[in-house]
Amino acid sequence: MSNEERSTLIPGSALIRFASDVLVGLGMPEADAAITADSLVTADLEGSGSHGISRLPIYAKRIREGRIAAQAEIRYETAGSVLRVDGGNGLGQVVAYRAVEKAIPLAREAGMTGIFIRNSNHFGTAAYFCQQACRANMALIAMTNSPPGIAPWGGKQAFFGTNPIAFGFPVRSGPPVIVDMSSSVVARGKIILADKTGSSIPAGWAMDEHGAETTDPAAALRGAVLPLGGAKGYALALAIEMMCGVLSGAAYGPHVNNLYRDGDPAANVGHSFILLDMSRWMPLDSYYNLAEQFIQEVKDTPKAAGSEAIYYPGERRHQQFMKRSAAGLAVPAEVAGELKRLGDEIGVVFPEGASHESSHNGA
Amino acid sequence: MSNEERSTLIPGSALIRFASDVLVGLGMPEADAAITADSLVTADLEGSGSHGISRLPIYAKRIREGRIAAQAEIRYETAGSVLRVDGGNGLGQVVAYRAVEKAIPLAREAGMTGIFIRNSNHFGTAAYFCQQACRANMALIAMTNSPPGIAPWGGKQAFFGTNPIAFGFPVRSGPPVIVDMSSSVVARGKIILADKTGSSIPAGWAMDEHGAETTDPAAALRGAVLPLGGAKGYALALAIEMMCGVLSGAAYGPHVNNLYRDGDPAANVGHSFILLDMSRWMPLDSYYNLAEQFIQEVKDTPKAAGSEAIYYPGERRHQQFMKRSAAGLAVPAEVAGELKRLGDEIGVVFPEGASHESSHNGA
Repeated sequence: MSNEERSTLIPGSALIRFASDVLVGLGMPEADAAITADSLVTADLEGSGSHGISRLPIYAKRIREGRIAAQAEIRYETAGSVLRVDGGNGLGQVVAYRAVEKAIPLAREAGMTGIFIRNSNHFGTAAYFCQQACRANMALIAMTNSPPGIAPWGGKQAFFGTNPIAFGFPVRSGPPVIVDMSSSVVARGKIILADKTGSSIPAGWAMDEHGAETTDPAAALRGAVLPLGGAKGYALALAIEMMCGVLSGAAYGPHVNNLYRDGDPAANVGHSFILLDMSRWMPLDSYYNLAEQFIQEVKDTPKAAGSEAIYYPGERRHQQFMKRSAAGLAVPAEVAGELKRLGDEIGVVFPEGASHESSHNGA
Repeated sequence: MSNEERSTLIPGSALIRFASDVLVGLGMPEADAAITADSLVTADLEGSGSHGISRLPIYAKRIREGRIAAQAEIRYETAGSVLRVDGGNGLGQVVAYRAVEKAIPLAREAGMTGIFIRNSNHFGTAAYFCQQACRANMALIAMTNSPPGIAPWGGKQAFFGTNPIAFGFPVRSGPPVIVDMSSSVVARGKIILADKTGSSIPAGWAMDEHGAETTDPAAALRGAVLPLGGAKGYALALAIEMMCGVLSGAAYGPHVNNLYRDGDPAANVGHSFILLDMSRWMPLDSYYNLAEQFIQEVKDTPKAAGSEAIYYPGERRHQQFMKRSAAGLAVPAEVAGELKRLGDEIGVVFPEGASHESSHNGA
């Protein structure tokens, strides 16, 4: 992606209000709109622009078409320590957040709650729900499927989503440990964003529809993203697809419909979460002491030549968040233009920003 | 590894009896010895020789020294849906198998049981316990830590184990889906085996103790294995270390002691499992139909040029198992010699095999 592109520097809080107002304008309850807006802009602030506010226009389009429910009727059912959730075709951010919220008191009781969600949609970053669990002093394992992105090993046609697995562990006096990795070499969102900004993608990311490697994001979107570490990434994507599709009763593989393809029916994305309340089996204080000691030891290992510091997963994400929360988010001109048009249609004013020519740092 | 090495072709069943007799000779209860022997030889038959019977001599050495308990007193404690296990410093194969066995009726009740195990040892392949769960019509997520193998990202000294994560899902009329991947580029066991057989290792597997890439297995064992997919593998190894070390109360990182290093105290390896009884929330028949349909669709995707078939994870493993169960296992001369000496010391006769010069196919 070009490091020199026109962008507008906008405070994160103004973007959150904008996105929230747009969603309310589309008929979403205020609290749900606030969750979604916070999730999107948090992704931008953390440096995961591909899952940020650049997604708002497509969400809005699908809500207006009735393909995603603005007012989702979410239904819950428990079976032992398992919470089953029908997302009522709501936005994934809302469905997943509500499901974790519902599961927290259950995990307080049982120590662990499995959450299987069907009938949902794209939920943004899995990290967001890990952070939600960590604020409740709990750990979370989060997985989701997504529209076909990865081909089976030995195949040439996308079948599995780029299916991320994420882990969140709370830390007492620092940002939580957040591991959030797709089972592809890169998140498909990065290719969507490159396509949108007219940039090429690095070699080794994707194959075109004939199975040949490509640096053209449009060809990659017609083809498949390469799995992480070859056959291992394939196996991981398949396991996550079983967790999120087969076990939840959601769609799987090519049956998960693509948000970006006109005319598709509801996506029926599935998520599966495992929420852990460690305080049920060890004093919370002991957990926090141990986690802190563990992290410190990781950071204290001898550094390789040229490495300035060792970061734990989630630490850089937090640093980015703090930096951009203070400085504002550089929204690329294309994305800002699209958001402004969306705001105009709905009657929400897109926030003014300072014009900015610099390295790409967000949305 | 050389494809032309001297080996002895021995039936798997004879190797199981040998390993079991050796372990009983070392004071292990018969049932536990049978589990361990079956686990080791199954790994060989499936093509995971690095976790196979070649491990028996070091297990035996440590049992004789009292560093691993032949008669482990395993203790269980439940907290809601979580089963906490103190492995009593038994062999990991025994501890993990008993823990899953204990958890199966709990998962029947609750739909899901989290199992956190401390005070255990190397457990062989995680796949073995996935298969155990699948025989009970359940799914399993299995993780374990291990002695330092992977350096933190930006570091040059091994800290995390090569920490595998595994998933098992039962299939009605075929081998289960088994995903079993280390968070390193390769399992450290493959480097141990290369060192034992005097072979070099491919570039891209490991760094030496100075942080430089190496193809010398001995230097790699003093250094670190490279994480899967770079920073992602580091993050995954760290998450698994937290699941298996921090949350279980076992050792973590450099505190996990190495089986191969003389004079170390008990390893205090930690495992963490999540056992799922889907029948608690969907009819088992529906699960099996859906899983079968899913797998068939994966196998039916268009093949890439040069690819003969698409296999699901666990399928090749099963084919290898069937083939070697029929043909016998080619045990490399070095391994056979070591096993024979061990047998002689304990008074167990090492099975005769047919001399064999061919490609390496097992132990």
